[in-house]
Amino acid sequence: MANPNVQIRFAQKEDLQAIRQLVVELAIYEKEPDAVKAQFADYQRAYEDGLISMLVAEIEDDIVGMTLFYDTFSTWRGKMLYLEDFVVSEKYRSQNIGSQLFDATLQVAKDRNCTMMKWQVLDWNTGATKFYENKGATIEKQWWNGKIIF
Amino acid sequence: MANPNVQIRFAQKEDLQAIRQLVVELAIYEKEPDAVKAQFADYQRAYEDGLISMLVAEIEDDIVGMTLFYDTFSTWRGKMLYLEDFVVSEKYRSQNIGSQLFDATLQVAKDRNCTMMKWQVLDWNTGATKFYENKGATIEKQWWNGKIIF
Repeated sequence: MANPNVQIRFAQKEDLQAIRQLVVELAIYEKEPDAVKAQFADYQRAYEDGLISMLVAEIEDDIVGMTLFYDTFSTWRGKMLYLEDFVVSEKYRSQNIGSQLFDATLQVAKDRNCTMMKWQVLDWNTGATKFYENKGATIEKQWWNGKIIF
Repeated sequence: MANPNVQIRFAQKEDLQAIRQLVVELAIYEKEPDAVKAQFADYQRAYEDGLISMLVAEIEDDIVGMTLFYDTFSTWRGKMLYLEDFVVSEKYRSQNIGSQLFDATLQVAKDRNCTMMKWQVLDWNTGATKFYENKGATIEKQWWNGKIIF
């Protein structure tokens, strides 16, 4: 059931601690409690440098969900918005909060004159995949990620 | 055999036309000649806004290869470099130019204090996948891309 008390707004510097806490909460839930190597100072620097933006879902004074995103560039399509992370706190799920956050993030992408929004989803996560397909998303399965960690 | 005449350098505004031309060349090679919707002006704007950086491989006065990349942010690892596109012109392949471009891009990621470099590769592209593995990359196969095009 939709929670009528949710406010979706852009995050400010003061919200960064709560946002990182949501990332940590999800990592613990995924049984990877030590995975979050990025410190609060890294979040602060990225925010101050304009590298990241975030929307938060707030109920009364609590941050219960967030999207974190940034502008990128497709050589085929031009400017796009990349949704890097998207978390709703465990006890606030199934209240339509994720849907509102996702829609608001899509709107930011349009406001910024992006030609598309992109993100990733784990292949086993059928719930999330369905959520995205219901939003009209195309799910591409033919790409692998390459990475080198320093 | 390595081509001894290659210079790797950062791209300037004057190189953007040649860079876009390499993207178009690859799209034609991949039998998608109309896929490059992003116009020269989009490349210019992205460059002027500091959204993208590029390295080019130059032989005499010809741009024969390029990498295009930008800073992004992992909520788990912090600042990272994303290699969006990587092209060596067809007739200049197998001359070690791609390897030099890739290594130089890795060095940019380190110089920018990124914690990792990421990119994508198509699952059927065993040549590229081997190239990346030889560079020490991890190839992740469990992520799907989601996208909504406006």
